[in-house]
Amino acid sequence: MANGDEVSNKQVLFRDYISGFPKETDMILSTTGTIGLKVPEGSNSVLLKNLYLSCDPYMRLRMTQSATYNPNFVPGSPITGYVVSEVLDSGNSNYQKGDYVWGFAGWEQYSLIENPVPSSLRKISYTDVPLSYYTGILGMPGLTAYVGFNKLASPKKGESVYVSSAFGAVGQLVGQFAKMMGCYVVGSAGSKEKVDLLKNKFGLDDAFNYKEEPDLTAALKRYFPKGIDIYFENVGGKMLEAVLPNMAPHGRISVCGMISQYNLEQPDGVPDLSHLIMKCVRMEGFNVSYHYHLYPEFMEVMKQYFMDEKLVYVEDTVEGLESAPAALIGLFTGRNIGKQVIKVSHE
Amino acid sequence: MANGDEVSNKQVLFRDYISGFPKETDMILSTTGTIGLKVPEGSNSVLLKNLYLSCDPYMRLRMTQSATYNPNFVPGSPITGYVVSEVLDSGNSNYQKGDYVWGFAGWEQYSLIENPVPSSLRKISYTDVPLSYYTGILGMPGLTAYVGFNKLASPKKGESVYVSSAFGAVGQLVGQFAKMMGCYVVGSAGSKEKVDLLKNKFGLDDAFNYKEEPDLTAALKRYFPKGIDIYFENVGGKMLEAVLPNMAPHGRISVCGMISQYNLEQPDGVPDLSHLIMKCVRMEGFNVSYHYHLYPEFMEVMKQYFMDEKLVYVEDTVEGLESAPAALIGLFTGRNIGKQVIKVSHE
Repeated sequence: MANGDEVSNKQVLFRDYISGFPKETDMILSTTGTIGLKVPEGSNSVLLKNLYLSCDPYMRLRMTQSATYNPNFVPGSPITGYVVSEVLDSGNSNYQKGDYVWGFAGWEQYSLIENPVPSSLRKISYTDVPLSYYTGILGMPGLTAYVGFNKLASPKKGESVYVSSAFGAVGQLVGQFAKMMGCYVVGSAGSKEKVDLLKNKFGLDDAFNYKEEPDLTAALKRYFPKGIDIYFENVGGKMLEAVLPNMAPHGRISVCGMISQYNLEQPDGVPDLSHLIMKCVRMEGFNVSYHYHLYPEFMEVMKQYFMDEKLVYVEDTVEGLESAPAALIGLFTGRNIGKQVIKVSHE
Repeated sequence: MANGDEVSNKQVLFRDYISGFPKETDMILSTTGTIGLKVPEGSNSVLLKNLYLSCDPYMRLRMTQSATYNPNFVPGSPITGYVVSEVLDSGNSNYQKGDYVWGFAGWEQYSLIENPVPSSLRKISYTDVPLSYYTGILGMPGLTAYVGFNKLASPKKGESVYVSSAFGAVGQLVGQFAKMMGCYVVGSAGSKEKVDLLKNKFGLDDAFNYKEEPDLTAALKRYFPKGIDIYFENVGGKMLEAVLPNMAPHGRISVCGMISQYNLEQPDGVPDLSHLIMKCVRMEGFNVSYHYHLYPEFMEVMKQYFMDEKLVYVEDTVEGLESAPAALIGLFTGRNIGKQVIKVSHE
């Protein structure tokens, strides 16, 4: 056969567009597919063995037909997202057999990335850390934290920083960037275990469980009696509503995500946006896909931090494509403790 | 008598804190007060004859006890706001009898500005335009338009600009700044008369009556098929809700005011703020009081525009303190055609 012997290629397929809360059954494990482990003769394609899949909140947006954030998932086709992979075969001079790469591919054991291979399929050269880190702290979520905090929020030493979803893939890093900048940093998360880790392992100045706060506005007033200079927004809705009256004059809100809103049929209305006026607050949304020109700079910064042992990072890894649907759904109940990764194959 | 002969000094007093829509009867015309027309012997105070009073939407916020925008009005004391005045007597070397000034004072015929006279009481040196312009186009609203559009919104030639409340004191100038910058500019207002003036007198590319649009989101889609690069926000609430899905990628929203919200017991919730993320939109609130260092620069720009006859400006002037309460209330029903001014005395 032209493409070499066919092997089994398990896949996680997207069933159909949804509204409301996603369920495991919105995804289907398919065990019937096969794939050849060679790229077609004379092609410029790349054949990947996928090692790690990334679960990220924005993926929920792609399950709705009207999504504008990314291309929608295609019913009957594999879920797609960020992966870390090994190159098994390549007709493309930029990639060699044995390279490790990270980028966008399907939730499947093997992916054929057809020509033109997107430049967003990046070769991994720094391997002093686990390869899975390229789904998180050294991948899209890491760059997201770097751009949203260090670049857009204009942080200064001594400022007060609040990070919601502080134990998520992005939040973990934002909190540490803020501490290294010399800020006072408080994070929120959804369980005692996460809160304890934020305080004791990540060294935040304080942390709280938002589920145990009947009045979020009052809670924030307690942690920030002089106001919040920077809010790193991962949650939206009622959390943002509680933050607005607690912002300090000339505060900045980096709007990275709004996970509380993605499953709602009717998004929460946020009142009192006039606080933006009275306190001269800048609220800036961003989509990291516009900022990949900063990735080399980000990697230099991160390599130095890793060499200096300045970073802590917690992953929550499940094994096998079979576990993938539950892992993705778990993001929206906060089941994961740290960055949610799916290990598909051994390196 | 130390302060010279006492003369009658009519005042408009604030009755008491309110919620909901303000009424004329929330203000009281007092005709019983008197004042001496000399500053106290040996004092550094300044005595003003008030010529023009400014009606501005933010004043509503000062009628609520919880207001944080400015000091609240004081029940039983005069309403305060921006005024244009003539100096009748001065013990302060910075001001001479006969000077014209603009700044903050009471709604009354004469005001004694006691030592220390605030530096925000500014002498008027450029008098080639009506003095009343210093309540608007050359005063606080003018600087507001300049800062909010030219400085914060980062406008570029060819961009698409939407201005709500485009016939208000600030909006009139924003639309003209945007046209001079080479932008495509659409404004909204609340009557056919205002819309016609925006199109024919102010030279906007288009304008519409928001009261006649059953679906504001669809209306904006019609005027901005490729999206809005800059929204100058004067209205808030449902208008902002309609703008968000119509923003273009990398759009900017300068949040100057939210007049639709000031009289509501429960402010409108604005859903779909996640458009800020998907389109990388920056939304920035500002309070012009932090930007007065730009006033000299602004005046140089404006004098040149006036010399070149590049500016149009429409005032709606009522006569006498008796007319002041109705004039202020009229802002919130859109009764005024252009900047609302109250003429108190002849120059």
